[in-house]
Amino acid sequence: MIKVGIIGATGYAGAELVRLLLQREDVEIVWYGSRSYVGEDFASIYRNVAHLVEQPCSDDDMAELSKIADVIFTATPQGFCASQVTEEILSRTKIIDLSADFRIKDVDTYEQWYKIKHPTPQFIEEAVYGLPEINREKIKTARLIANPGCYPTCSFLTVYPMVKEGLIDPNTIIIDAKSGTSGAGRSAKVPSLYCEVNESMKPYGVATHRHTPEIEEQLGYAAGKPVTISFTPHLVPMNRGILATAYGTLTKPVTAEEVKAVYDKYYQNEYFVRVMAPGMVPQTRWVEGSNFVDVAFQIDPRTNRIVMMGAIDNMVKGAAGQAMQNMNLMFGLPENTGLKQIPVFP
Amino acid sequence: MIKVGIIGATGYAGAELVRLLLQREDVEIVWYGSRSYVGEDFASIYRNVAHLVEQPCSDDDMAELSKIADVIFTATPQGFCASQVTEEILSRTKIIDLSADFRIKDVDTYEQWYKIKHPTPQFIEEAVYGLPEINREKIKTARLIANPGCYPTCSFLTVYPMVKEGLIDPNTIIIDAKSGTSGAGRSAKVPSLYCEVNESMKPYGVATHRHTPEIEEQLGYAAGKPVTISFTPHLVPMNRGILATAYGTLTKPVTAEEVKAVYDKYYQNEYFVRVMAPGMVPQTRWVEGSNFVDVAFQIDPRTNRIVMMGAIDNMVKGAAGQAMQNMNLMFGLPENTGLKQIPVFP
Amino acid sequence: MIKVGIIGATGYAGAELVRLLLQREDVEIVWYGSRSYVGEDFASIYRNVAHLVEQPCSDDDMAELSKIADVIFTATPQGFCASQVTEEILSRTKIIDLSADFRIKDVDTYEQWYKIKHPTPQFIEEAVYGLPEINREKIKTARLIANPGCYPTCSFLTVYPMVKEGLIDPNTIIIDAKSGTSGAGRSAKVPSLYCEVNESMKPYGVATHRHTPEIEEQLGYAAGKPVTISFTPHLVPMNRGILATAYGTLTKPVTAEEVKAVYDKYYQNEYFVRVMAPGMVPQTRWVEGSNFVDVAFQIDPRTNRIVMMGAIDNMVKGAAGQAMQNMNLMFGLPENTGLKQIPVFP
Amino acid sequence: MIKVGIIGATGYAGAELVRLLLQREDVEIVWYGSRSYVGEDFASIYRNVAHLVEQPCSDDDMAELSKIADVIFTATPQGFCASQVTEEILSRTKIIDLSADFRIKDVDTYEQWYKIKHPTPQFIEEAVYGLPEINREKIKTARLIANPGCYPTCSFLTVYPMVKEGLIDPNTIIIDAKSGTSGAGRSAKVPSLYCEVNESMKPYGVATHRHTPEIEEQLGYAAGKPVTISFTPHLVPMNRGILATAYGTLTKPVTAEEVKAVYDKYYQNEYFVRVMAPGMVPQTRWVEGSNFVDVAFQIDPRTNRIVMMGAIDNMVKGAAGQAMQNMNLMFGLPENTGLKQIPVFP
Repeated sequence: MIKVGIIGATGYAGAELVRLLLQREDVEIVWYGSRSYVGEDFASIYRNVAHLVEQPCSDDDMAELSKIADVIFTATPQGFCASQVTEEILSRTKIIDLSADFRIKDVDTYEQWYKIKHPTPQFIEEAVYGLPEINREKIKTARLIANPGCYPTCSFLTVYPMVKEGLIDPNTIIIDAKSGTSGAGRSAKVPSLYCEVNESMKPYGVATHRHTPEIEEQLGYAAGKPVTISFTPHLVPMNRGILATAYGTLTKPVTAEEVKAVYDKYYQNEYFVRVMAPGMVPQTRWVEGSNFVDVAFQIDPRTNRIVMMGAIDNMVKGAAGQAMQNMNLMFGLPENTGLKQIPVFP
Repeated sequence: MIKVGIIGATGYAGAELVRLLLQREDVEIVWYGSRSYVGEDFASIYRNVAHLVEQPCSDDDMAELSKIADVIFTATPQGFCASQVTEEILSRTKIIDLSADFRIKDVDTYEQWYKIKHPTPQFIEEAVYGLPEINREKIKTARLIANPGCYPTCSFLTVYPMVKEGLIDPNTIIIDAKSGTSGAGRSAKVPSLYCEVNESMKPYGVATHRHTPEIEEQLGYAAGKPVTISFTPHLVPMNRGILATAYGTLTKPVTAEEVKAVYDKYYQNEYFVRVMAPGMVPQTRWVEGSNFVDVAFQIDPRTNRIVMMGAIDNMVKGAAGQAMQNMNLMFGLPENTGLKQIPVFP
Repeated sequence: MIKVGIIGATGYAGAELVRLLLQREDVEIVWYGSRSYVGEDFASIYRNVAHLVEQPCSDDDMAELSKIADVIFTATPQGFCASQVTEEILSRTKIIDLSADFRIKDVDTYEQWYKIKHPTPQFIEEAVYGLPEINREKIKTARLIANPGCYPTCSFLTVYPMVKEGLIDPNTIIIDAKSGTSGAGRSAKVPSLYCEVNESMKPYGVATHRHTPEIEEQLGYAAGKPVTISFTPHLVPMNRGILATAYGTLTKPVTAEEVKAVYDKYYQNEYFVRVMAPGMVPQTRWVEGSNFVDVAFQIDPRTNRIVMMGAIDNMVKGAAGQAMQNMNLMFGLPENTGLKQIPVFP
Repeated sequence: MIKVGIIGATGYAGAELVRLLLQREDVEIVWYGSRSYVGEDFASIYRNVAHLVEQPCSDDDMAELSKIADVIFTATPQGFCASQVTEEILSRTKIIDLSADFRIKDVDTYEQWYKIKHPTPQFIEEAVYGLPEINREKIKTARLIANPGCYPTCSFLTVYPMVKEGLIDPNTIIIDAKSGTSGAGRSAKVPSLYCEVNESMKPYGVATHRHTPEIEEQLGYAAGKPVTISFTPHLVPMNRGILATAYGTLTKPVTAEEVKAVYDKYYQNEYFVRVMAPGMVPQTRWVEGSNFVDVAFQIDPRTNRIVMMGAIDNMVKGAAGQAMQNMNLMFGLPENTGLKQIPVFP
C-alpha cells in the first residue's frame, strides 16, 4: 500500500489526483492538504467523492506529512514546493511537484519568467523533469520530480520527433495552443466567471507565457542546441482539453509516410501516445478524462512547412495523470497502473 | 471471461457500454453491432478507443450473436429487440435490452404511448424491470432484462421512498426533469445541432413523453395502487446529466429528520444512491461519468409540499452503467464491479 | 434628449442598460455609476462599447446625479436604492429601481424574505410595480418604478391569464424555473466560475427564493385573493435566458382553443408578448437579446392540469429591457422605442 | 424603400441577413428564398421573427426575383450564384453573393480549390471583392459583389497594415484561426451535433482550406507580389465568433508605438475596425452580434516576430453584416446604416 499525501488537494489538479488515486486499491491517500479549507470535509468541497472520502482537509505542512507519506504530490502555486522542500524531507519521502519550481534547470531563466526568487536552487539539478516518454529511466530512481506543465507536455510531445530527427528547423517553430478553462484554476476571479468565458475565445500571455522557456529547454535537449520559439496560449470555452497546433519549416522534403515512420519510431511503444494516420486530426474529446496524447501532422508542400497537432486532457496527461504515471515509475509499477481510463465521450 | 455482444454499439449508449466494458478484465466484447457502420472499424467511429479496439462493426444479427455471447446488450431503437428475441435465443444467452420494449407490463399501454405493435408480447411477463435497487433478487435469475429509461431511473429513485411510505399523495406528483443532450442520440437532425441546442433550453414532449407510463407503473407498485403523474422533460445545453425536480403534497406533517430517515431506510445500503443531508441540493456535475444517483429533498411548509431532487448521469446510471450493474447481478458478481468510476469534475 | 444616469452600471444588468440606451438617439447617458471602478473608463471594463463610450465611471451618489438626470436607473444590490432615495430626489428626477426594494407592498414580507430592515418604507406605497403589461397606466405617471425581478416577470406573465380568468386554482401553482448564469451577477465567486457551472445543472433557493413573495403578490392581485405557490429556480449552463414551466390544476374542463383565446384576450395587443399556437413550446434562443416573452401551454387531461411555459431573456425583459420599456412609458414615448431588437440566433 | 430579396434565407447567414434587414425602416424584404422550406412560413423555421415576418418561403428563382428586387443577396452553397447570374439579371438588379463564386479572380485557382467548374467566368472580372475597408470606392458602383469569406475578412484585416507597409515578410505569415460552430451551417450532419462539438476542439481543413487562396490573393494585392501563407482553421464550442492569431517575421525592428501608428493609419477612420492599445488582446465576446473587428498585436523581440490578433462575429462582419455594409455603399447610404448594433455581452 503506497501512502500518498496531496498538498493543494482542493485545487482542480489536486482534486483530479484524488479522483485518480482513489480508484486504486494499492494506494491510500493519507493527507488532503489545503490552505483554504483546513478542517472541512474534503467531500463537502468536492462532492463527486461524497460517501467515498471521509477525511477532512489538513494543512500544508510538508515536513509533517513527509513522516507518514511514501510520496507527496504538491499541486500548489509557484514557489510553494521550493520553499518547503529540504534534504530531510527528501530523505524520507518522494516528491512529485506539479508546480514549475523545479522544471527549469537555469535558475536565472526561472526567476526571470516567474518573477520569483528561487528559494532552494540546490535541488534543481537533482530534480528530474517528469516526462516519462523522454526521461523514463531517470524518473525511476528520482526523489524529486518536476511534473511538466500542461502546455509543455502537449506541445513538446507534438513536435519532439520532428525536432529530434532534425526534420524541422527548431527556430521556426510556432506553437498556437488552446486550453479549456480548468487550466485557470479554481480561484474566484472575474475573468474566470462562466459568463466571461462562455461563448468567447481569447489569446493570453502572448509572447510572455511562462511555459515558453520550459518548452524551449526541452526542445533544446532534443535539438542539441538552444531553441527559441513562439508560443501563444488561448482560452477556450470548455472544461478540459488542450489542443496544440504547431508549425515548423521542413529542413528537407519528406513524405507523409516518412513522417509517420518518424513519429512511430518514438511513440510506437508508448502506451499513452497515439499517433494518428496521415490526414487525420486530433480532437480533445477523444482524450478527455484519460492520460492519452493524440498526435497527428499534415505536410504543406506549398509553404514547405509541416503542421503538427496534439491533444491531451490538461487535467490528466497535463497534470494529475502524468504525476501518477511518474509515481508508478518511481515505485516500480507498470506505468499505466490506474491510468487505463478510456476517454469519456460525449 | 464473460463474452459480451452489443447491438447498437455505435449509438451513444452503445459506445458508453463499450467504454465501461472495455475497462474490465473479466469481460470480452465479441460483437460491436451497428446498422450504419458494418465493416468499419469501431475505433474509427469512436476514436476515444483508438489503439484499444481492433474489431470492425458487425451487423445486428441477434440470433447469430446469441451463439457466441453470454449476454447481449441491445442499445437499439424501440421495437428492435422485441422483433428479434426468440425462445431459442433466450435459451442460449441473456439479454439486457436498453430500449423500452419490455419495460411496460401492460401491452396496450405500451402500444398506445409508443405507437408500435408489440411483436413478441409473450416475453413481457418474463422480462424483469432492471432497477437493481428495487428488483435485485429477480434480476439475479432473469434471462431478459428491461433496462429502465434514463428519466424513469432518476425520477423514480428520487420519489420512491416517499411514495412507498405513503408520505406523499402519489397523484399530486409533478416531475420536472432536465436532460443533457446525449439523451437525444447520435442521429443527424437539425434540432440536435450544436447551434440549435447551445445557449438555449426548451421543454419537449409535454404531457406526452413516453417515459410517463413507465414511471407511473413503477410508482404504482410502490403505492399499491394506480398512479397518474405530470412529467415534463427539458433539453439542456450540456452533454450528460439528468436532474429531476419532483413535487408532491405531504399526507401528514413531517420533519426533515424524519424524511431523511425514510430515504436512509431504503438507500443506506445502496452503493450507488447517495442521500444528501437536509438543505443540500444535487448537481449533475457531481455524478458525471459515474453510476451514482444523488438524491435530496426540501420540505416546504408554506405549501405543504415536499420538493424531491435527484441527479444521475443519463449515459451511466441512466443507460449503460445500470445495464452493466444488471449484468453483474445476473452473473453473480459484486454489483459495483467495474462501476466504481468516480465522477469526473470539472 | 433624455438625460439618463445609471447607478450600478458595471454589473451585468447595468451594462445591458448601457447597451440598450446607447443605441438610442433620443437618450444621453450622463452617469456611469459604479462602486468598484470609479475613475476607470467604462469601456475598459465592458469592451463591447470600446470606441463608443468615452466616459469614466462615476460613484453612486444619487443625490448629485439627480441634479443632472431626467431619470435614474439603479441596478444595485438590495437595499441601496431604498437607502438613498429621498423626497427631494424624487421631486427632481424619476427613478427606475431594478432591485427588489420597492417591489413588495407589505414591508414585513419584504423584511422577512430579504433579511433587511427597509430604510424608507414611506415610498413603498407610491412605487409602481413596473410590469407594463399589467400596470401600464400607473407607470406613465409614476416617479418611482419597482422594476420586476427576472423570474417574476417570466413566471407571472406565463400564468397570469389563466389565474385572472379563474381557470386554474392558484394555490395549486408550481413554477419550475430555469435561468442562465448572467442572473448570478458579475461578482467573483467560486460557484459562478466557468468550470463549476459548465456541464452541470442544479436547483437553488428551493422553497426559499426571494422572488417567491413577489410572484405571489402579483398573482394575488390577479386572483383577487392571497396565493401561495411553489417556486424552484435552477441554474443552467448558458449565459442568458429564463424558461418557466408552470403547473396548475384546472378548475373546469377547457379546450386548447379556449385557452388560446384566453391568452390572446390579454396579450393580443401586447407587442412584447408572443402567444404560441397550441402544441408549441417556447425556447430561450428565440427571445435571446430581445424584450420578447414567448408563452405557450399544454393541457394534460390525464391529470386535469395545464402546463404553462414562458421564455424571456433575463437581461432584457427580465431587467434592462423592461426598465427601458418603463422609461418609454414614463416619458410618453411609444413603448417599444429602442426595443425592437430581433432575437439573436444562433 | 429598398426592396431586398434573399436566396438561401433559411441558412444561418441568410437568417442573419433577415435579422439585420428587418430592423431597418428603409428596407423591405420581398423574398425569403429557400430550397428546403418552400411554402412554409419563414417564422415557423426561425421563430425569433415570430409575429414579425408573415411571409412564407419562396423558391430560389433568381431571374424571377430580379424583376422585383433592387438587390439580391445569395447566401447559398458554392456554385449556385454563378450558375444563375446573367447579364439580364444584372441589368435589372444588384447582387451581393455571400458564396465564394466570384471572390477569386483566377478561375483556375477557384476551380482547383473548390473542385467546381465555374459556369460563368465572364462575370469574375466585373465582380468587386466586397471588403469596404479596402475597396470602398469600387463597391459604390458595383453591380455584383463577392462578399468576403468569414475567415478571410478576419484574417486579412488583422494583418493588412503590416503587409501593406512592408513591415513583415508576407511569406512568413501563419494564420491560426478559430471559429464558432455557426460557420458550419445548418445542415444536419453528425460532426455538427451538439454532443460532437461541445467540450471539444479540433483543427480541420489543415493546409487545404478553401479560404486560403482568397486570403493569399488579397494579401498579394497589399504586398504587390504573390503571397503564400499557412492557414489553419479550428472549430470551437461556441455559436459565434472568429479569432485569428497571425504570426509574421518582422522585416526591421519596430516599437509598439510605431506598429500602433501603422494600424491607426489604415483604420483610424474606419467605424467598424477598433485597433486596441498595445498589450491588449481581442476577445470574440466583445464583438458578438456586431459588425466590429477588434485588432491587436504583440511584438516578440525574442523571435523577431509579431503576433497579430483579430476578432469578428462570423455571422455579422464575417457574412450578413458585411453584406449589408456593402449594400449601404451601393445605395449611397451611410456605411453603418442599420449596423450600429452594440455587441451583446454576456
